[in-house]
Amino acid sequence: MRSQSSWAWLGIVAAAFVSVDAGANAELAKLSQDPSNWAMQAGNFANHRYSELKQINKDNVGKLKVAWMMSTGVLRGHEGSPLVIGDTMYLHTPFPNKVFAVDLDTQQIKWKYEPRQDSAVIPQMCCDTVNRGVAYADGKIILQQADSMLVALDAKSGKLIWSVKNGDAKLGAVNTNAPHIFGNKILTGISGGEWGVRGYISAYNLSDGKLAWRGYSTGPDSEMLVDPEKTTTWIDGKVAPVGKDSSLKTWQGGQWKTGNGTTWGWYSYDPALNLVYYGTGNPSTWNPSQRPGDNRWSMAIWARDLDSGAVKWVYQMTPFDEWDYDGINEMILADIQHKGKTRKALVHFDRNGFGYTLDRVSGELLVAEKFDPAVNWATHVDMKSGRPQVVAKYSTAHGGPDVNTKGICPAALGSKDQQPAAFHPKTKLFYVPTNHVCMDYEPFRVDYVAGQPYVGATLAMFPAPNSHGGMGNFIAWDASSGKIVWSKPEKFSVWSGALATAGDLVFYGTLEGYIKAVDLEGKERFRFKTPSGIIGNVFTYLHKGKQYVGVYSGIGGWAGIGMAAGLEKDNDGLGAVGGYRELRNYTDLGGTLTVFTLE
Amino acid sequence: MRSQSSWAWLGIVAAAFVSVDAGANAELAKLSQDPSNWAMQAGNFANHRYSELKQINKDNVGKLKVAWMMSTGVLRGHEGSPLVIGDTMYLHTPFPNKVFAVDLDTQQIKWKYEPRQDSAVIPQMCCDTVNRGVAYADGKIILQQADSMLVALDAKSGKLIWSVKNGDAKLGAVNTNAPHIFGNKILTGISGGEWGVRGYISAYNLSDGKLAWRGYSTGPDSEMLVDPEKTTTWIDGKVAPVGKDSSLKTWQGGQWKTGNGTTWGWYSYDPALNLVYYGTGNPSTWNPSQRPGDNRWSMAIWARDLDSGAVKWVYQMTPFDEWDYDGINEMILADIQHKGKTRKALVHFDRNGFGYTLDRVSGELLVAEKFDPAVNWATHVDMKSGRPQVVAKYSTAHGGPDVNTKGICPAALGSKDQQPAAFHPKTKLFYVPTNHVCMDYEPFRVDYVAGQPYVGATLAMFPAPNSHGGMGNFIAWDASSGKIVWSKPEKFSVWSGALATAGDLVFYGTLEGYIKAVDLEGKERFRFKTPSGIIGNVFTYLHKGKQYVGVYSGIGGWAGIGMAAGLEKDNDGLGAVGGYRELRNYTDLGGTLTVFTLE
Repeated sequence: MRSQSSWAWLGIVAAAFVSVDAGANAELAKLSQDPSNWAMQAGNFANHRYSELKQINKDNVGKLKVAWMMSTGVLRGHEGSPLVIGDTMYLHTPFPNKVFAVDLDTQQIKWKYEPRQDSAVIPQMCCDTVNRGVAYADGKIILQQADSMLVALDAKSGKLIWSVKNGDAKLGAVNTNAPHIFGNKILTGISGGEWGVRGYISAYNLSDGKLAWRGYSTGPDSEMLVDPEKTTTWIDGKVAPVGKDSSLKTWQGGQWKTGNGTTWGWYSYDPALNLVYYGTGNPSTWNPSQRPGDNRWSMAIWARDLDSGAVKWVYQMTPFDEWDYDGINEMILADIQHKGKTRKALVHFDRNGFGYTLDRVSGELLVAEKFDPAVNWATHVDMKSGRPQVVAKYSTAHGGPDVNTKGICPAALGSKDQQPAAFHPKTKLFYVPTNHVCMDYEPFRVDYVAGQPYVGATLAMFPAPNSHGGMGNFIAWDASSGKIVWSKPEKFSVWSGALATAGDLVFYGTLEGYIKAVDLEGKERFRFKTPSGIIGNVFTYLHKGKQYVGVYSGIGGWAGIGMAAGLEKDNDGLGAVGGYRELRNYTDLGGTLTVFTLE
Repeated sequence: MRSQSSWAWLGIVAAAFVSVDAGANAELAKLSQDPSNWAMQAGNFANHRYSELKQINKDNVGKLKVAWMMSTGVLRGHEGSPLVIGDTMYLHTPFPNKVFAVDLDTQQIKWKYEPRQDSAVIPQMCCDTVNRGVAYADGKIILQQADSMLVALDAKSGKLIWSVKNGDAKLGAVNTNAPHIFGNKILTGISGGEWGVRGYISAYNLSDGKLAWRGYSTGPDSEMLVDPEKTTTWIDGKVAPVGKDSSLKTWQGGQWKTGNGTTWGWYSYDPALNLVYYGTGNPSTWNPSQRPGDNRWSMAIWARDLDSGAVKWVYQMTPFDEWDYDGINEMILADIQHKGKTRKALVHFDRNGFGYTLDRVSGELLVAEKFDPAVNWATHVDMKSGRPQVVAKYSTAHGGPDVNTKGICPAALGSKDQQPAAFHPKTKLFYVPTNHVCMDYEPFRVDYVAGQPYVGATLAMFPAPNSHGGMGNFIAWDASSGKIVWSKPEKFSVWSGALATAGDLVFYGTLEGYIKAVDLEGKERFRFKTPSGIIGNVFTYLHKGKQYVGVYSGIGGWAGIGMAAGLEKDNDGLGAVGGYRELRNYTDLGGTLTVFTLE
């Protein structure tokens, strides 16, 4: 009897867990469908960064005024955005990764959480100590700390509920990405592409923080959760199984072990397919002749089953990367017309300068076209093989180590980096913050030492030729045809995330510190100078009947690393990002949230 | 012939220098009379913090909007304000004391100057690493660095013209005060009251940075530039000569050598009298029984001849200080009606809680009344002797060391600290940011060790009783009668400087981060939440026909030291300023300039 009742009790508990988890997912879906909230970093599971709010529209946006501001108390680069759930806003900061809950009625701080992290993490973060924000579900705020600790906080009190270690920071496995909550799982990635970290994506249970599954980017099929027969890729003009050892075969010896494919971007989720989409980063080192082969599955788009992590399909954009064209940029899900058919599409703007449209169900390659006119490293993507056609003079492996290959476009930070694009359902266009920057690239021999930088190239970046000095464009992109619809030049790279709204507007920020709103034809309707350069993502919410638009300012990130790390005083110290030196004439460090509204 | 022409040449050069200096003074006077500029920290030589601008007035101030903002890239407390000369704004920061020149048309940064200072200075700054701003004259920006270096920068290029060492930072002689330019001289003080620094005021030539004169606060007459017969003080109901060794006689042994009287406040200047006015700080140590005597001339108001430094008169407010009622607060010059006569007055709101009105020509004491109802350490100031009548139970020397004297009002940070008041010529009233805070005070024996803290007391500060939790008031003060005209309670101490304008407005900032405007009756007409707590001073200027009002936010200073130095995480670490612990629920660190205008 005792035993039986014990089992019964367990059964009830298990059912309750399922119910809580399902409830959390349903709750999050519902929260994100109410445009009063900004319940997830991208606004929805599809990464649209679109809001149905239209109180602020193209005709009145010129009257937008600052409603209130809040300093975060942290100087370095501020990526991501706050969340808004009901009457509470949740802010985050770069290292040390503070989290604040702010009462929207009073702007008072309800609670602050400040983890104690070893500052040894700071120099391990290649491209500034950024953090892309928290996630919310089931009464929990989920924070992915720099030191790889994933923590769940009580959204009401800020008290720690659970924490789990996601990587070994001593080996350079640190974090910058936002955690993503899909279903009853928290998905998070890993950084450390310049430390030889073998990349993986991890799924943790929202309820208790236990690891549900982990899928590596390289190595044995079993560790990648690849089924040689069921996992497919685009090859020879069709979708076909990847076959046995699809990764192992493309690396020399055990190089896949330090082969990277890190996973620090913006993921998306299709609940109907139960598939999660994300990208993997560069192979190590940046000296390509040291690691011959296609280096699979670095530089790839992945579709995994949410429950099991099993890989449905994978597509490698840049086999044998020679330029650090890290493939982690966001995956946006939308229905796209293609050759007369509506396709359940995935759209991705890669660092390599190509905008990809794939069928997200099958992984079929539909479109791969340049979204940055500067791109010269490849003539085009061969649609049959899916492979870019590399221009020999821009191959950095061609000359071997210690040869400086000049004038490669784009630069290593790509035609676009992590700064996420927005999708507008009315125009079916994508609004993309882009870079317009080229580089000279000189690889050199490097040995892997655990926990040490493993880079292997020196770079110099500079504005693209014939760009009239402009280092970026904000563009509208037609993913059906792979064409730029319009392009608005900017002085510096556009390193902030975009926001599209039903007010027929698209917002973005600039490195000088302007938040701008353009209409759907690309005409500027509003600009305002915030306290520092913007690398955060614009977000919107409704509170007590009024629409607000907000953004973090706080120069930094890769483009702003010169300022963030105090290198700009020493011209030589800027190295790779010397092209951004002039930023010091426009802005200084400091994290601030600025919130705008109509009067 | 050669010798003669050489002399003639020297003569011409000398004449040119005189001309430049006179020109510089005339230029500064002229610049400060044009309300388009904010040419000196206090707006004019008299410390009025008043502007004739009235485009923004009590009827339209409610429509004030943020025009633009700029992060300074420094986290700790931001006191003082920028200057505006023509189309250029000059910003400064706390340590490391950066200076920016900003083009008002484009908000672009024309130049930045960042001194390289030894960070050993930081722990020597008792009450946060603040700096109260730069001065301008004759094409030069004058910066008083924390490490005591006084530097002249070319206002056009930011290039260093000259620099001079004003004190020995190794002994704790550091700086927080703004330099003041009067005539052809730069006047600057010294900090280090908690390091046993012997205070002095120094006058340097604007042209070349050479020391013109230096007057000590304590010690031999010759070093104070006191003439026993000609220098007067208020005694026995009249102005009379101080007599020989007026300081030496009031110290035991050589204690005047570590006797402080530091000079880090806001000075004023009367060109007609050619007199400079300023105050001296506390005697060392904070353990009074260790230094018997009146400890002259700590805690005093001084009038010195600008050219020679000779002391015209001196008045000690708090003989034998037992509470750290540092007398450095600003001296405001105005014509005041007193007993039917117009007096050339000096008005001063002291840390000790008394508002003083003196005849600034003679040093005659006219009024000394409490401007904070909490004040309990003295019943009143005896007008004949000029001495406060101390209440025995609040004497910290009474019980001797290691006795905790409870409930003293005001606390050591005074009924007002350095946060400067404004004077409105229309109402002839003074608008005063005040504290409303009390303390328990326990002195202890301490030995002087050069370059080490020399404090000798532990304190606990808390809101004044019956204050309904409010730790400050913004008040209007009648200096003729010594009466509070109105008082507006604030949750925290009002630690920002006030600005009065011809728009019938007075502006000030709060520690939570609000800039507020009240009309001349004290009614709130405008408030706006800036990014951080405000301890800066409000300023105004006109650019291309539009009036702007600006202020630094950036929590810190003595009231905010808990946050600025990261002590607020550890309640015990807050010590003296525990009463401000709740600030963490309102704001976080970060220096930002916010500039407002009407649409």
